Amino acid sequence: MNIKLNDNFNNIKETYLFSDIAKKVNAYKEANPEASVIRMGIGDVTLPLPKPCVDALISASNEMGIKETFRGYPPEYGYDFLRDAISGHYTKLGVDIASSEVFVSDGAKSDLGNLPDILGDNPIIIPDPVYPVYVDSNLMSGRKITLVSGNEANGFLPEPPKDYNGASAIIYICSPNNPTGAVYTAEGLKAWVDFALATGSLIIFDSAYEAFISEDLPHTIYEIEGAKSCAIEVSSFSKFAGFTGTRCGWTIVPEELESNGVKLSKFWARRQATKFNGVSYPVQRAAEASLSEEGLKALSSNIEYYKHNAMLMADLFRSKGIYFTGGKNSPYIWLKCPGNMGGWEFFDYMLTRFGIVGTPGEGFGEAGNGFFRLTAFNSLENTEEAIRRLGDL
Amino acid sequence: MNIKLNDNFNNIKETYLFSDIAKKVNAYKEANPEASVIRMGIGDVTLPLPKPCVDALISASNEMGIKETFRGYPPEYGYDFLRDAISGHYTKLGVDIASSEVFVSDGAKSDLGNLPDILGDNPIIIPDPVYPVYVDSNLMSGRKITLVSGNEANGFLPEPPKDYNGASAIIYICSPNNPTGAVYTAEGLKAWVDFALATGSLIIFDSAYEAFISEDLPHTIYEIEGAKSCAIEVSSFSKFAGFTGTRCGWTIVPEELESNGVKLSKFWARRQATKFNGVSYPVQRAAEASLSEEGLKALSSNIEYYKHNAMLMADLFRSKGIYFTGGKNSPYIWLKCPGNMGGWEFFDYMLTRFGIVGTPGEGFGEAGNGFFRLTAFNSLENTEEAIRRLGDL
Repeated sequence: MNIKLNDNFNNIKETYLFSDIAKKVNAYKEANPEASVIRMGIGDVTLPLPKPCVDALISASNEMGIKETFRGYPPEYGYDFLRDAISGHYTKLGVDIASSEVFVSDGAKSDLGNLPDILGDNPIIIPDPVYPVYVDSNLMSGRKITLVSGNEANGFLPEPPKDYNGASAIIYICSPNNPTGAVYTAEGLKAWVDFALATGSLIIFDSAYEAFISEDLPHTIYEIEGAKSCAIEVSSFSKFAGFTGTRCGWTIVPEELESNGVKLSKFWARRQATKFNGVSYPVQRAAEASLSEEGLKALSSNIEYYKHNAMLMADLFRSKGIYFTGGKNSPYIWLKCPGNMGGWEFFDYMLTRFGIVGTPGEGFGEAGNGFFRLTAFNSLENTEEAIRRLGDL
Repeated sequence: MNIKLNDNFNNIKETYLFSDIAKKVNAYKEANPEASVIRMGIGDVTLPLPKPCVDALISASNEMGIKETFRGYPPEYGYDFLRDAISGHYTKLGVDIASSEVFVSDGAKSDLGNLPDILGDNPIIIPDPVYPVYVDSNLMSGRKITLVSGNEANGFLPEPPKDYNGASAIIYICSPNNPTGAVYTAEGLKAWVDFALATGSLIIFDSAYEAFISEDLPHTIYEIEGAKSCAIEVSSFSKFAGFTGTRCGWTIVPEELESNGVKLSKFWARRQATKFNGVSYPVQRAAEASLSEEGLKALSSNIEYYKHNAMLMADLFRSKGIYFTGGKNSPYIWLKCPGNMGGWEFFDYMLTRFGIVGTPGEGFGEAGNGFFRLTAFNSLENTEEAIRRLGDL
């Protein structure tokens, strides 16, 4: 063929991070067949789906098998029962979001990837290190990206650029952050909202990990005054209720969010109605169940389990005097590799010395060099065993 | 805010088709409270999900609730069990598609909407009338669209443009067609494949209705020699197995499909891995079950039910000497409005005279003027009642 392809795809670096990790782990296991390897690099939940969600999945599946209760095409923006439940979730967080501002989807990654569809060519500001989807989906539409670096000085919570004189921008913020586990305070977020309002910019706020927050920190950007005029929020049931394999997320586009008089909710609604056909009915019922009283109780117990693992790891690194972020309000621990090791060097050290697998920080951006991510998505037994082994670190 | 939006969104006509229809129907029902209205405009399945699919949904949902069988993030391109089953489906159609060429998604509409992501600025060729997503998703990326008209002379199966001297193009073909129900013969499709090969163009072939084919007509574009070098096929479990509310589809990107040396499968894989996180595990198990022996038996019986409705309508219009396409190999009947009525005029006539609701052809493109779509997705009883009423047509 002789058609033109989207050449921007050639600008995306191939990532071999996880395949390189797998290769190293396999080589180690071949050389040490009796070694027990503990995988602390997992970015995926491991506890089963809460029972109220399973019950809802089954009950809705049965409905689909009966003529009188069968449901065809779902509404493109989600069933009212789920949009209402998500709106109610925000009410509990002290924030007023109308059901009509909630757009249900098959997951935050889809929405984060698809939001650039409705945007023109604006400068993009992305914290580094961060979830790679923000960078890659903007490279795919040929956007120019400016990274703002996280580091020890700012606690991996970059501040808005000083003396910014560029055009109105699209700003990505992930808090609690993946991979660093760092969480913005209300003051920290307010600085970004003020920056966005002053520069006419849009914030795309990723709150996928908000359920891990236990301290008095913002769960949603809409806790910050003015955010409804400058921010879209993308969130998910994945880490909230263990839906990584069940697939459901949502995006909030406030009614008052306008650029030069055009409502962004209108463009997003149009995008979704044209290029998306809604989420599976049983899945939406399961998502609704996660927000019920019984569902929230079950998922809290799962989150507490992961957070206990994170706390045990945090205690260890604190006792060793190793710098880290996360470990509370997040399932992630982001630690500085001891002895000025690079991320890959520390990876090899952790694997060969302790049989522990983590993720080198460079996998999440240049500012991740010399750092390392461990996760709490493991069994308590494995986490305790890892901590025992790391006594010699 | 002052950010740039994607201004192409302003070029998409607002469609009030279905809301206009609803308004007219509501007004009629208010004026005639005792009238029984039969809705023959439904483009959605109405029979319940086949039992093997419901059983698979339930069984997989139970697995999600047990630690040992819980599944997290699905593979972005689909589980092997489903990719293998879809590959097996093609084997039965006499076509060799490797599992690695199958990309599972949440539905054909998503894939049709997202495929332009990987393409550059090429001319777009779209038959008229047709499923509006092809036009709208290309307008959203600012593409220039050429429509090729269906009409009585070509039986609503437009042929490739003669003496084409434009650049290599993206060509959309839907067969069996929505809304006309017309199906290309192997010769008709070969003309398009030959045109694509001669002009270096790409065909995006939508086979969502292939399960309705009973005559000896192509179920997949890959039955045509050379298609693997010039065609992507998008398909769906929606009409095949009644999955409109369950959500699962697939796209075939053949390994040999290259433009100027770049494999399209590589770009599509990259797009999906970046902007999509796979399909719900229980849904994939249900889709797999639809392709089992027991599943195929159950879904065939549903399709036969709809086809019997279509046949009854076709017999009526044939006996009345009214021109139509579809009615076999398709759930749609596309008829010429009698007495040179326009689509909306005929709509009013059908509603007020017979209490029957259909869809005016102009809703599917300009070439639909003066035509009308009726669908077979109704109960046999309603279809028979509609035919009884239309005896006076």
